[in-house]
Amino acid sequence: MHQTGPTIGIIGAGQLARMLIEAAIPLDLDIRILAADSTDGAARIWHHVTIGSPDDPEAVTRFAAGCDVVTFDHELVSESVLIALEQLGARLAPSAATLRIAQNKQRQRELFARNGLPQPRFRILHTRHDAEQAGKAIGYPLVLKAAAGGYDGRGVWTCAAETNLTPVADQLAARGIAMITETLVPIERELAVMIARDMRGRITVLPTVETTQIAGICRQIVYEAEAEHVDATTLARSVAEAVDLTGIMAVELFASEGHLLLNEIATRPHNSGHYSIEALTTSQFEQHLRAISGLAPGSTVPRTPVAATVNILGPADGSDPRDYLASLDCPDAKVHLYGKTARPGRKLGHVTVCGDDRAACVEMAWRAVEHLTREHRPEEIQ
Amino acid sequence: MHQTGPTIGIIGAGQLARMLIEAAIPLDLDIRILAADSTDGAARIWHHVTIGSPDDPEAVTRFAAGCDVVTFDHELVSESVLIALEQLGARLAPSAATLRIAQNKQRQRELFARNGLPQPRFRILHTRHDAEQAGKAIGYPLVLKAAAGGYDGRGVWTCAAETNLTPVADQLAARGIAMITETLVPIERELAVMIARDMRGRITVLPTVETTQIAGICRQIVYEAEAEHVDATTLARSVAEAVDLTGIMAVELFASEGHLLLNEIATRPHNSGHYSIEALTTSQFEQHLRAISGLAPGSTVPRTPVAATVNILGPADGSDPRDYLASLDCPDAKVHLYGKTARPGRKLGHVTVCGDDRAACVEMAWRAVEHLTREHRPEEIQ
Repeated sequence: MHQTGPTIGIIGAGQLARMLIEAAIPLDLDIRILAADSTDGAARIWHHVTIGSPDDPEAVTRFAAGCDVVTFDHELVSESVLIALEQLGARLAPSAATLRIAQNKQRQRELFARNGLPQPRFRILHTRHDAEQAGKAIGYPLVLKAAAGGYDGRGVWTCAAETNLTPVADQLAARGIAMITETLVPIERELAVMIARDMRGRITVLPTVETTQIAGICRQIVYEAEAEHVDATTLARSVAEAVDLTGIMAVELFASEGHLLLNEIATRPHNSGHYSIEALTTSQFEQHLRAISGLAPGSTVPRTPVAATVNILGPADGSDPRDYLASLDCPDAKVHLYGKTARPGRKLGHVTVCGDDRAACVEMAWRAVEHLTREHRPEEIQ
Repeated sequence: MHQTGPTIGIIGAGQLARMLIEAAIPLDLDIRILAADSTDGAARIWHHVTIGSPDDPEAVTRFAAGCDVVTFDHELVSESVLIALEQLGARLAPSAATLRIAQNKQRQRELFARNGLPQPRFRILHTRHDAEQAGKAIGYPLVLKAAAGGYDGRGVWTCAAETNLTPVADQLAARGIAMITETLVPIERELAVMIARDMRGRITVLPTVETTQIAGICRQIVYEAEAEHVDATTLARSVAEAVDLTGIMAVELFASEGHLLLNEIATRPHNSGHYSIEALTTSQFEQHLRAISGLAPGSTVPRTPVAATVNILGPADGSDPRDYLASLDCPDAKVHLYGKTARPGRKLGHVTVCGDDRAACVEMAWRAVEHLTREHRPEEIQ
């Protein structure tokens, strides 16, 4: 059957794979999915799904052998899988080298330092003793991070005193995971930039957004045309070159005491960029697909002055937001459900509202999410 | 597996089914497709596809028995299929009664007449003799239409003289197809309105567009915020009530000598409404799904001052527009390919460009389509 462009394999079948599929259909791109489970969000809807563990080198290489280019739903790809893919000679986007940086905060920090990019002061440590010494040098409170394996706030600890640090450092050292201690910088705002770079090096930058994390989990993303962030864009470009990016990447930043500091990166579509589905001419998902399949980049010009995205987290009582969609009467709320089984705290979807007024968009998005989850927004948001 | 709302069966697997799927994914709606062939545009991508002829009452009822609501990719559903579905007690959206009107121009004309709605003067005829008599009464040129079975300009003949009319009338009479003769009204512009009505009777109207047909085939659709069409909206509402609509409908109109006249209707998503994917908060596809599955209607407020859609027709040399997507460098062109085998004149996709300036959007959309088809736009457009 005739198709457009290369066969694209996606390893992992979560919401990012699902939204990549949404973007691939109008372009008639040939997508294949490697899903751990047939009930995964993207596996439930797509015609070409292989069931196999994304952590199993054999399953992954068998899958990749049928694809022209392989991309990822998440960056937590095991080293043994990366090696197997490299031996196969598979074309990866992002590359294995880029993924090795993205999946490890130590490598990120060291790369940023080598390139003279602004970031919080940090130290790399391997033992409890070193961590305690670093604490004495930096002072408390400080931030302790596991170099690898964390996401959505996992693997990050804010330590008010040495007594908070010691047990965590002990555990990480015992598991052989490198640690990073960082100065707890005063954060005025958290920003994120999505940036895409294609195989020919063409770069497009999506407008910067302001993100709100609570307990390490992203809850709200706001794009506002008025708020220009030239520095964030410049920084994102430097990072894209430094990691030799192919595809899309999220660059997360702290605005602190008049400066921008690099927090971390994710070399894939990202929660911070979901607003782009409605707010921009080309979404982060389409731009990623264009970048890795040889199509020219699309326009990232905004189509709205403001967009607010609020995540739908699984309610504490275990109820399912899908049960409240029929009773949701919020004409401007663009609802995105990920087809995942409801579990407390799990990201099950998001709502985006576009408009002219920041406060109105944020309010409407939260009202829709409150209806779907039967939960009030967190106090920190009010 | 948990899902949102009713199981929706779509009979037919063309581009409308495919774009309904695109709209269904973010809402996590459960869609099933009845496809004549596994290579049909929607069948190629979706997980839940039944192969069977949409004209086979047994295949259709077996399919419909597994669905809570059944909708259609096209309105040319055979009477035997409609009867079988009614006997099954299937919930159809639109209803069988509405479909019987939509698929027959005679019933449309007579319904419009009963409701006092403006339309060209017409006569219903069954024999060549009657047709010739009507021609003498109306005068030439006139328009002759087959009451049933036409689309994309098929089943419509403009007759300059009786010698053009007689052979067509002979053929139609021999096949037992009723004929309509209509005054050839001077057409200043052709307009179309998409209107949705849900199971509770809630109506939403999408902004009116101007369409350009060449040889009966829609080539270009332009939405412009400045051009208000209050009369078209009012007319569309009257038609929606008259046909007892459920779901979305296209109302096609002639602007003639300062008046609007009803041309015809289609009770499904329609080519005239493809612009809504990018231009409105809620697309015609999402609005149709919302209307037939019990969700509240979405906002139909425009998100752009102008949108221009140009259809991608299969080039005369048989080449495939998909082969030219990689070399298309037109960042603002939103390309929609339908996954269909290329054949000369076949609708293979469309391109929409949003912006501020009508001429610029139209020009950019045509340039993208010219690139993809390697054909110049028709002279009538220049």
